[in-house]
Amino acid sequence: MDTMISGDVVEKSNAVGEKTLRADYASLGEQLDRRGIAIDAILGKVEAFGVAIPSWGVGTGGTRFARFPGQGEPRDVFDKIEDCAVINQLTRATPTVSLHIPWDRADPVRLKQAAARFGLGFDAMNSNTFSDARDQKHSYKFGSLSHADAAVRRQAVEHNIECIEIGRTLGSKALTVWIGDGSNFPGQVNFARAFERYLDAMKDIYAALPGDWRLFSEHKMYEPAFYSTVVQDWGTNYLIAKELGEKAYCLVDLGHHAPNVNIEMIVSRLIQFGKLGGFHFNDSKYGDDDLDAGSIDPYRLFLVFNELVDAELSGAKDFHPAHMLDQSHNVTDPIESLMLSAVEVQRAYASALLVDRKALAGFQDENDALMATQTLKAAYRTDVEPILAMARLNGGGAINPVAAYRASFYRQKVAAERPASASGGGGIV
Amino acid sequence: MDTMISGDVVEKSNAVGEKTLRADYASLGEQLDRRGIAIDAILGKVEAFGVAIPSWGVGTGGTRFARFPGQGEPRDVFDKIEDCAVINQLTRATPTVSLHIPWDRADPVRLKQAAARFGLGFDAMNSNTFSDARDQKHSYKFGSLSHADAAVRRQAVEHNIECIEIGRTLGSKALTVWIGDGSNFPGQVNFARAFERYLDAMKDIYAALPGDWRLFSEHKMYEPAFYSTVVQDWGTNYLIAKELGEKAYCLVDLGHHAPNVNIEMIVSRLIQFGKLGGFHFNDSKYGDDDLDAGSIDPYRLFLVFNELVDAELSGAKDFHPAHMLDQSHNVTDPIESLMLSAVEVQRAYASALLVDRKALAGFQDENDALMATQTLKAAYRTDVEPILAMARLNGGGAINPVAAYRASFYRQKVAAERPASASGGGGIV
Amino acid sequence: MDTMISGDVVEKSNAVGEKTLRADYASLGEQLDRRGIAIDAILGKVEAFGVAIPSWGVGTGGTRFARFPGQGEPRDVFDKIEDCAVINQLTRATPTVSLHIPWDRADPVRLKQAAARFGLGFDAMNSNTFSDARDQKHSYKFGSLSHADAAVRRQAVEHNIECIEIGRTLGSKALTVWIGDGSNFPGQVNFARAFERYLDAMKDIYAALPGDWRLFSEHKMYEPAFYSTVVQDWGTNYLIAKELGEKAYCLVDLGHHAPNVNIEMIVSRLIQFGKLGGFHFNDSKYGDDDLDAGSIDPYRLFLVFNELVDAELSGAKDFHPAHMLDQSHNVTDPIESLMLSAVEVQRAYASALLVDRKALAGFQDENDALMATQTLKAAYRTDVEPILAMARLNGGGAINPVAAYRASFYRQKVAAERPASASGGGGIV
Amino acid sequence: MDTMISGDVVEKSNAVGEKTLRADYASLGEQLDRRGIAIDAILGKVEAFGVAIPSWGVGTGGTRFARFPGQGEPRDVFDKIEDCAVINQLTRATPTVSLHIPWDRADPVRLKQAAARFGLGFDAMNSNTFSDARDQKHSYKFGSLSHADAAVRRQAVEHNIECIEIGRTLGSKALTVWIGDGSNFPGQVNFARAFERYLDAMKDIYAALPGDWRLFSEHKMYEPAFYSTVVQDWGTNYLIAKELGEKAYCLVDLGHHAPNVNIEMIVSRLIQFGKLGGFHFNDSKYGDDDLDAGSIDPYRLFLVFNELVDAELSGAKDFHPAHMLDQSHNVTDPIESLMLSAVEVQRAYASALLVDRKALAGFQDENDALMATQTLKAAYRTDVEPILAMARLNGGGAINPVAAYRASFYRQKVAAERPASASGGGGIV
Repeated sequence: MDTMISGDVVEKSNAVGEKTLRADYASLGEQLDRRGIAIDAILGKVEAFGVAIPSWGVGTGGTRFARFPGQGEPRDVFDKIEDCAVINQLTRATPTVSLHIPWDRADPVRLKQAAARFGLGFDAMNSNTFSDARDQKHSYKFGSLSHADAAVRRQAVEHNIECIEIGRTLGSKALTVWIGDGSNFPGQVNFARAFERYLDAMKDIYAALPGDWRLFSEHKMYEPAFYSTVVQDWGTNYLIAKELGEKAYCLVDLGHHAPNVNIEMIVSRLIQFGKLGGFHFNDSKYGDDDLDAGSIDPYRLFLVFNELVDAELSGAKDFHPAHMLDQSHNVTDPIESLMLSAVEVQRAYASALLVDRKALAGFQDENDALMATQTLKAAYRTDVEPILAMARLNGGGAINPVAAYRASFYRQKVAAERPASASGGGGIV
Repeated sequence: MDTMISGDVVEKSNAVGEKTLRADYASLGEQLDRRGIAIDAILGKVEAFGVAIPSWGVGTGGTRFARFPGQGEPRDVFDKIEDCAVINQLTRATPTVSLHIPWDRADPVRLKQAAARFGLGFDAMNSNTFSDARDQKHSYKFGSLSHADAAVRRQAVEHNIECIEIGRTLGSKALTVWIGDGSNFPGQVNFARAFERYLDAMKDIYAALPGDWRLFSEHKMYEPAFYSTVVQDWGTNYLIAKELGEKAYCLVDLGHHAPNVNIEMIVSRLIQFGKLGGFHFNDSKYGDDDLDAGSIDPYRLFLVFNELVDAELSGAKDFHPAHMLDQSHNVTDPIESLMLSAVEVQRAYASALLVDRKALAGFQDENDALMATQTLKAAYRTDVEPILAMARLNGGGAINPVAAYRASFYRQKVAAERPASASGGGGIV
Repeated sequence: MDTMISGDVVEKSNAVGEKTLRADYASLGEQLDRRGIAIDAILGKVEAFGVAIPSWGVGTGGTRFARFPGQGEPRDVFDKIEDCAVINQLTRATPTVSLHIPWDRADPVRLKQAAARFGLGFDAMNSNTFSDARDQKHSYKFGSLSHADAAVRRQAVEHNIECIEIGRTLGSKALTVWIGDGSNFPGQVNFARAFERYLDAMKDIYAALPGDWRLFSEHKMYEPAFYSTVVQDWGTNYLIAKELGEKAYCLVDLGHHAPNVNIEMIVSRLIQFGKLGGFHFNDSKYGDDDLDAGSIDPYRLFLVFNELVDAELSGAKDFHPAHMLDQSHNVTDPIESLMLSAVEVQRAYASALLVDRKALAGFQDENDALMATQTLKAAYRTDVEPILAMARLNGGGAINPVAAYRASFYRQKVAAERPASASGGGGIV
Repeated sequence: MDTMISGDVVEKSNAVGEKTLRADYASLGEQLDRRGIAIDAILGKVEAFGVAIPSWGVGTGGTRFARFPGQGEPRDVFDKIEDCAVINQLTRATPTVSLHIPWDRADPVRLKQAAARFGLGFDAMNSNTFSDARDQKHSYKFGSLSHADAAVRRQAVEHNIECIEIGRTLGSKALTVWIGDGSNFPGQVNFARAFERYLDAMKDIYAALPGDWRLFSEHKMYEPAFYSTVVQDWGTNYLIAKELGEKAYCLVDLGHHAPNVNIEMIVSRLIQFGKLGGFHFNDSKYGDDDLDAGSIDPYRLFLVFNELVDAELSGAKDFHPAHMLDQSHNVTDPIESLMLSAVEVQRAYASALLVDRKALAGFQDENDALMATQTLKAAYRTDVEPILAMARLNGGGAINPVAAYRASFYRQKVAAERPASASGGGGIV
């Protein structure tokens, strides 16, 4: 297997921290042992846990006001795959890449080889009918799958089917559909007719889905539409999955909800009704801020994983959610942000595994709210970093991924090869 | 038919405004005629439109910090019915009363007679398992229909069945179930298990529902529970109605949503999927503020009615929503607030009837967002007060309900009969 | 004076509606007369009222996901001035243009002549340190006026001083400073140190302000920064204006607040403390949506003007607020949206002028909340369109600006001259 | 010094955990030592840190819908002091009590003795003009310090002066003023006039303040007023403190803000401008939920303390904030919730003390956003429980306060002496 960063760099970096790590791991092991938890079992689960990297995440993001490019940004999907390889090499937590068509359009066979070179696979395919590709026949200015004009809807359906075809070659097993369709003015769109058209179009896509694939629909409260959005919340998303059939599931992006909404409860409902398809992980303070997972409200991320672990341990039906990061890195090196975000997702998972679920259920049955919530806090407060670091070390990754990455001078090296991209925005206000 | 206020008072009050009203009505009629709308057809629809008064609305409301009683507050359900009679006498818009058990518990036959005396009927029955009645066996402190303990759930189910029984005698045709069940701490409750228990209990209530009744479940984002609520949004509410059966519908309270949520879109979805049961009308700026309908964002109320009229005119299936006010009057005379709120709901209905729907559909199909939204605005901006006042005058009510009410000195009269109630709150913070 | 649209087109369009308008105006005049209001006095105030057009508003807007260009978009600031001339020709409500540097950089003398040709003047100048101009020495990626590096701050200060210089030639009398400075991660920035640096830099700009100019600082809760923003709310904005001096004022953009915030109260506070500089008008449902003024919550816009009229009539000190639209037109013809938005702002002003302020003050003193709020509603519900249309007609504009505009085929004509601009976004997610 | 719980119970409870605690403390000490932090210095700071208990917090709270009393609720202020003594005995973190007048009105000399018996002191006095006390001459239904009627304002001023007088005897050094004044309807109140009246009344109170006292004004976005609130946000609060003088400061309740607001930034601004008076700690998900501190978003609490520690270490001027809990305990034993909440506040303080501030400042200056935020996370993730437990043990408190409390059967004992209080609510909707 090829690596983008020399093994020496990683070894050297690990040499600094390994002794301390082993001591911390042993110490944490004792502490967990006192609580009746076998640390190695947790380690095993963490090692088996992976989260996909979105190909677009390795480029510098921006806002409608501006984009400030970073150094050495990937020029094409092959550069992106190399960046993804770095992330997985150092974290051992991101075995797959999720592509976005048409941004990542390339010969699928070549794509597959490029990823295989680094041992990477492909997660869900993502279609794009929220912007107009060059030379596209019909514009999506007024919608795509829900557009008033059947020709536009047809074009959007065909694009999704093309995504499935590409994904088939790549070994993907899912299609994620997020659209920007909606309206900016009361009255611009008839809600019911638009949703009917959307459902009809989605049925056409669903019909083209291979038997072993899943279809993920993704809801979002607002943006780019600012008065109404066709797939605005989990209620509508559930209706879609229900209408389409058993291969259709809901995808939850943590930043796509109304202020104050209890997201972990939505996760629970979708699990309970067999329709949770997966996640786009990120964090947010105001809206779809696409900040690094766990950077703003790490306890919320833990509470989401508390639901996931509960479902995993209780054997919930149709429960095998996809995990993907979906973030916009405007002021950091995207590779660094993605590495730490993947670790943060792992951390939430590991912490949730520490919850004493038998005690919790007991407190719940006795209405002992205080002890129930303390049971979660006891797990959350435990610093599981030694487990995460050990998982990386065992897998050949870096104890401290950022330190190893910086020591490798990867960014500086690719900056020399990849020309600076243009800064942007500046007119879209 | 008895009236609480002398017909003389109303006539005298109307004498002041009738001439102007007839001129304004004629003038508006001409204007509408230019737009191809027959004013009398709108008048007819408005006259046929009614909204129910909640019995608890005629008392002065309060907050957890304090309640500042008004003068002459109703002492019991019979006083409440008299206040409701005043509201309907002057507005001709509120033909029914909605009772809350146990607050309004009384001999149903006597209740029916009391209401019939004023020509009032009974709207949906409301159960109460969010507070403990005196001498109640089990407490609802930790929930009711979703409580961990089967005995508590059983008690709550039986209370709901009792409400149905009372309503049967009264001629009610629906039961509204709103519960406060939820949690204040992460981990306090297992979301999935609590919802299963809720669904099971609701199925027992549903089983006791007469064939010609409907069951309304009502969602609310938060309060009284401040971390999670069992029936927290329309998504969960839809799941409930779907699980229970065809007599089960969702009730939408305008103040029970997350900040910024597009409520009219939720209304559309529920209509489209045949599950809109009815409304609790009120207005809000921050949360479940229970302010007077249309007092904060009158255009939002219009947009809700835009959906309702669209469904009415297009013959949507299973569409016969119940209309009720649900407000808390802390700083006004409740009778005055309820009269004007009923008028405000009528106003939204009348305005929505003025929308040129053929033109609107055309603009929507052509993606002419600007003209589509202007089509709504043209209807909204038309001052329909002459239609509403004419409907009142035709029905024997007051052109200016507040003026007539104040001229009747009703409040002062009942204040002499009804002793002052205690101010409250002051300790529940 | 030149016009972009032939006077014949306007006359022809007006011929259709003039008779009805005169009848409606007379009818409204009678109605207002009954309420003790002289319609001509209101008309006079409306005719004297103007709102500035932002030069960037005449181009099609977009989001970080995509921009869908319209036909015939302005190629440069001279095209923009022509589009602004159309807006003012038809509405007679937008006598000034507000420029954005560097987007509108051009020979100031030529600019002044171009505007003068249509009788247009210049409103506040707008600086831009939230995006990087081509060939700019230092990047604003990590801030501008609050940047950790003094050289970057210096560059940003100098850019603002350049804006003042340009504005001086143009006859502008104010500089508006909005920056995107902030952070995306807890800890990224030290709040206090960043604000100190910002204040120091603003003092340098203030020092360069001509004696008859005003400096407007503009706050915004979030975006483009998603964890913290240096000038995040009116509290910080007030501190700035207070620190800088008597020529410094706060600018309020209606979309830059936290959810649920009572904006009219902020307006009142700034008036009371002599620091209200002006407005960026628009509407919003979720965040800084930049939707057309009054399109989502027209009553809120009225309530803002209720404060402004109250201050105007009571002779508030230091009260001469600037009015500007600031919107993003993604799905409409920007000229149409700006025309109707200017009218909508006028409408709110005219409606607020109808409030019976003596009665209102009486109800407030007597704690008659119901009649107080009804006093506002009585004014708000009155359809003032005849007054607005008469003001346009008297000024040589169009009774129905959109109809006249469409009849002129202006957009089609400029589309033939102005090449299609590129669609954008598509990578900034 | 008297204690409410036998020292034997505490010792027995501590015997179980002491050995493990000492091992964990040593282990953490080594870990911190590696990071250049002396654990004993942190311990010392934690031991010196205290947070006040609000007297009303030891009773069971409720909502406007219901109050479900707990067992053995305090009957009067003397019972409350005993409960507060338990909290401080076991946590050693709550040396003072904050009283609410008139709820806690009693002979001040007796009160002082009752507290002194347990070594408790008195924190800020709290006035109450948001509810009507029995036999009060004027009602606060329509406001208190901002009321339209001067006699009502005078009564409210005098009540505040009485609170100062009582506090003088008790040894309090501050008065906290929170009012519910505001409006439920647009137009009900003139914002500017109401605020002028408020400021005038506050000046009268300020004039009565002893020289060594501080006056805290507390802002809140909404509730009990649901359209506008006189002291609605920190901007208005700052204006108040500025107008009144140097003894006037702003008090920040963590739950009194608009959705999504960055509270730590407000804290920073108030520190920077010398006007931060203190805190009401609690947590919230939706509004002023008054949940246990740190129970919903513990990282936010840490970020607030990050600002406080930064100010403490940098020697910010006029910086000596008061710390108080202000929570409503509806489903837990209030003593348990208050003990753990005090610990949670200590935890945030201890964690913030671990931040490597020199490294942080360096990363900030270099715009290394990723490492800056990781520097905070490194401190936050460290489990400081051994330090907190050691502080309790050293002070004679309990390693595990809840375990010791439950082992003492205190609640059961007082339940036998204190009759059950009435359940409430049930009519205030």
